[in-house]
Amino acid sequence: MTLAPFEIPLWADLAAVGIGALQGAMFAGRLKERRLDLLGVALIGILVGLGGGLLRDILLNQLPAAMKTNWYLVVATLAALLGMALLRLFTRLNPLIIALDAVTIGLFAAIGTTKALAYGVPEVPAVFVGVVSAVGGSILRDVSLNLPIALMHVGSLYAVAAGAGTVLITVLVALGANITVAATTCVIVTTLIRLGSVRFG
Amino acid sequence: MTLAPFEIPLWADLAAVGIGALQGAMFAGRLKERRLDLLGVALIGILVGLGGGLLRDILLNQLPAAMKTNWYLVVATLAALLGMALLRLFTRLNPLIIALDAVTIGLFAAIGTTKALAYGVPEVPAVFVGVVSAVGGSILRDVSLNLPIALMHVGSLYAVAAGAGTVLITVLVALGANITVAATTCVIVTTLIRLGSVRFG
Amino acid sequence: MTLAPFEIPLWADLAAVGIGALQGAMFAGRLKERRLDLLGVALIGILVGLGGGLLRDILLNQLPAAMKTNWYLVVATLAALLGMALLRLFTRLNPLIIALDAVTIGLFAAIGTTKALAYGVPEVPAVFVGVVSAVGGSILRDVSLNLPIALMHVGSLYAVAAGAGTVLITVLVALGANITVAATTCVIVTTLIRLGSVRFG
Repeated sequence: MTLAPFEIPLWADLAAVGIGALQGAMFAGRLKERRLDLLGVALIGILVGLGGGLLRDILLNQLPAAMKTNWYLVVATLAALLGMALLRLFTRLNPLIIALDAVTIGLFAAIGTTKALAYGVPEVPAVFVGVVSAVGGSILRDVSLNLPIALMHVGSLYAVAAGAGTVLITVLVALGANITVAATTCVIVTTLIRLGSVRFG
Repeated sequence: MTLAPFEIPLWADLAAVGIGALQGAMFAGRLKERRLDLLGVALIGILVGLGGGLLRDILLNQLPAAMKTNWYLVVATLAALLGMALLRLFTRLNPLIIALDAVTIGLFAAIGTTKALAYGVPEVPAVFVGVVSAVGGSILRDVSLNLPIALMHVGSLYAVAAGAGTVLITVLVALGANITVAATTCVIVTTLIRLGSVRFG
Repeated sequence: MTLAPFEIPLWADLAAVGIGALQGAMFAGRLKERRLDLLGVALIGILVGLGGGLLRDILLNQLPAAMKTNWYLVVATLAALLGMALLRLFTRLNPLIIALDAVTIGLFAAIGTTKALAYGVPEVPAVFVGVVSAVGGSILRDVSLNLPIALMHVGSLYAVAAGAGTVLITVLVALGANITVAATTCVIVTTLIRLGSVRFG
């Protein structure tokens, strides 16, 4: 299935990158025992923001979006710095980090899947690309921090949330749904599953 | 050296992916202390099955084979689930896992080297691509599980087995041997070295 | 900004690869507690030598330079073996390893940034590619050895050195400076910052 020419809107991709970088810097900044310096925290934030998109575009054998314009790296860096500042201003940010994490997963899953479909990738690998986009940033974060990969361990429904969202978007597109509607549904469903999984388990 | 147009047969690539995923899921399923959930075990299996081929195609700057058709991910997923089921049914699977591991290395080494040669990559990097294809899945597995990379440590002849096989196939092809003959020889030699290294060391 | 056709001289890229591999093998050979075998030490050396360039070319969606000619892998392998031999001959090599490390960072930063600019990548991602080229080998080394990534931790000015050098080269090129002059300046500045950071902190 090849979609009619379809561009991911730049603002949507940048929003996902920014939220990811904000959330990644907050996550890294709270790991006191890792003795990260400020630069390390900023780098982890940038990596979380850009990682999913980089892996997505490498899998699709495309020049990564972040290589095409200055915006991606600028947004990721500013968002990571903002995350570090918020961490110093507020003490109880855990619920915010979890909520932002859930929204990022949904956004990246939707963008990754639709981009893959737009390049003519079949349904199953398109779902795979969506999931990798969604969880790639957090995987690279955990590998960089020498932590066990959260995704692999008991109790995490990360990949399930992203998988459900990407399967949904693929089915909706196959049924002829409007891309924006399908993507929005994917973001909402993924975010809800992820938030539900945190709440109930 | 550029080969005449040469397609890796889909069934051969899928067989290597399936055996790799089966073996990867068995390996991960036996790591009780890692507290992997079922999803984590399945993901490791899929990663072991697809990892070598993904790294191979990224090095060759080609769209990964697993992005071109649904088969790769379907086969890897089913094989990983089969590996998890076998693990519950049988207790003494160690010899089987080692044998499957040896065959996978040989298959991926042969496929990786011939694909690189077919794309006009010179002999030395073609051998490198073959070795990366052969050991890439297990490297990604160890990094994902936060284990020391088996390849780097005392007593493992992984890379030697893959290296010998890929050098052999490259020499045979340079001497004008039939690709199928060269690849089959590579698989047999690699598997024997790997099995011998387990037996005697 | 697109540069007029500009080829990185092969000797410069090979020199960076060779020094990186030499230094990487020395680093790995000194980690007694890791129980690396000789093959593992050689592999780490090769990875440090080639890693930055591989990541650079994957980010730029180009066939990696090391896939185009036999030289890269041959030079990296010989340099890694030389590093292992030097380690056995001399006991006090720490200052040499640090100096070589500093030069490698500068060379890779300059090559990575100019290659990115030559392919029409905008300034900010070109700086990013330069930094990734410079520190990529050491990141892959630390991940492979299951070590905390040096780059992320207190006291390391790795990324600052590479970042300053790549920003400098980008500004000089934007101002119309000759590429060779800009690259040489970048190498010198990066090396000095890195050496200064070791000396004073």
